[in-house]
Amino acid sequence: MKVRDLGEDALVERLLLGLGSGDGVIVGPGDDCAAVQWPGAGGRGKALLLKTDCVVEGVHYLPALEPTRVGRKAMCRVLSDMAAMGGMGRYALVTVMTPRDHTVDYWRAVYRGLERAGRRFGVAIVGGETSASRCAAISVSMVGVVPRSQLVVRSGGRAGDVLFVTGRLGGSPARKHWAFEPRVQAGRWLAEGHFASAMMDISDGLAADLPRLARASGCGYEVGTLPRTPGCTLAQAVGDGEDYELLIAVRPHKADALEQKWKRAFPRLALTRIGNLFEDPSCKNLPTGGFQHFA
Amino acid sequence: MKVRDLGEDALVERLLLGLGSGDGVIVGPGDDCAAVQWPGAGGRGKALLLKTDCVVEGVHYLPALEPTRVGRKAMCRVLSDMAAMGGMGRYALVTVMTPRDHTVDYWRAVYRGLERAGRRFGVAIVGGETSASRCAAISVSMVGVVPRSQLVVRSGGRAGDVLFVTGRLGGSPARKHWAFEPRVQAGRWLAEGHFASAMMDISDGLAADLPRLARASGCGYEVGTLPRTPGCTLAQAVGDGEDYELLIAVRPHKADALEQKWKRAFPRLALTRIGNLFEDPSCKNLPTGGFQHFA
Repeated sequence: MKVRDLGEDALVERLLLGLGSGDGVIVGPGDDCAAVQWPGAGGRGKALLLKTDCVVEGVHYLPALEPTRVGRKAMCRVLSDMAAMGGMGRYALVTVMTPRDHTVDYWRAVYRGLERAGRRFGVAIVGGETSASRCAAISVSMVGVVPRSQLVVRSGGRAGDVLFVTGRLGGSPARKHWAFEPRVQAGRWLAEGHFASAMMDISDGLAADLPRLARASGCGYEVGTLPRTPGCTLAQAVGDGEDYELLIAVRPHKADALEQKWKRAFPRLALTRIGNLFEDPSCKNLPTGGFQHFA
Repeated sequence: MKVRDLGEDALVERLLLGLGSGDGVIVGPGDDCAAVQWPGAGGRGKALLLKTDCVVEGVHYLPALEPTRVGRKAMCRVLSDMAAMGGMGRYALVTVMTPRDHTVDYWRAVYRGLERAGRRFGVAIVGGETSASRCAAISVSMVGVVPRSQLVVRSGGRAGDVLFVTGRLGGSPARKHWAFEPRVQAGRWLAEGHFASAMMDISDGLAADLPRLARASGCGYEVGTLPRTPGCTLAQAVGDGEDYELLIAVRPHKADALEQKWKRAFPRLALTRIGNLFEDPSCKNLPTGGFQHFA
């Protein structure tokens, strides 16, 4: 079977099957980040978050995209994954794969984008490498940190949990796939306040990502209305992807308090109650406006 | 200026210039691994080692190489870097970039190679991702650990230090570029016994790597004889690269004790005294057998 017949998502799932157990592993493959205990630190204290993510020219960005934006995007995608676990990035390693006829100035601009985005969110680039390649790609590996008791995973949701999303969904192809804000402060705040029972970032679109969170939590879901980017159809809001907003499951008795405190903490960022998790895993109600997700 | 005019080594040096400072950074770019303090652990205890490394089809291996060997090589290259800092790998993330017409079985075999090599040396694969790409590549990011007081860097050498190498050099293209043994136990043993004042692994060949260690230590060097792989010329021994043996600088008063204890600890692995570091940085004497290194 070829990769094209299986798809990249199913491929990585198959490759990682049965891996990820080992001393100190708290969260293995299948969540936004891996989480491990720091050897020797015992069961308390802080957990390490580990994540690697690559953007490939022609797949994740067009060759014409300004290189500082390419760098910013590569860094912010990983920051968004850290935020989705309730953590903060700390150290990054950058791998640059480059055709030999790319210019040095191009890569310096990519690095400016990487470095600025990192600095803004407290991440230092501590190493990197370049390799010759026929296609351009940037891979960012990050180590982050989260207090062990505040780690939020995808599988923590329970029947009855209220589903929220930050910001507005849809429109990334036209607008913000390179300019999104990773929800770093919001993710930390939600974890610190123990509001989120489960969380992930919406990178492939709600129609692809909500089923992942629900499945990890062993639940079904029902979604009513959605906060759409102005001008976007419902199909775009659930299907465009690259929103990098947070999808959050919240225990019902905490939902009202969350909404009130959120308004004071993040007056300029929408937080919208979009639905609930349900006990029946076959309950999968998401208004799609005709969007069909082909995995 | 194009990447081809500058070369990948000079490119990464230029890109990383001025980066790598930040809270808790012990070793930034330019060594085998980055080393950072674990936030909140204070100045004592253990350091995290961070490293990412990629192998690209057609650049680091030929398409015909058995996929389990590709995976083994990708994992062992990073283990070798960890060993060169005196540390052990613990957790790895794997990025697979794949053309859509590669087979799923191919990548499963790559993963078997990765996983076996990791397990043998105590490394768990805790996550990964796949991305579509026009060219195949595998990137391994690893987090390792080393007691803070045993961390060995390239810059620790001093004039008078005796230079050693493990094993024998040369012949990798014909023989062992995919079958080398990362010197994990040896690296740990050297660090634990505080024998190594500076250390690195020989990945690009002694003619390229020794000048790096010497420059980092602010020294010159003079090398006499070299332990060659049987059948290899001197030019091959210094120039072939991909030896993944350890190059070690040792304070002169420790050299004899090291040789004696080494024989008991590693009876089947050669350790050869090859020369010395010198105060004059312009002293660069390495028998090359006619080999010329073009950076």
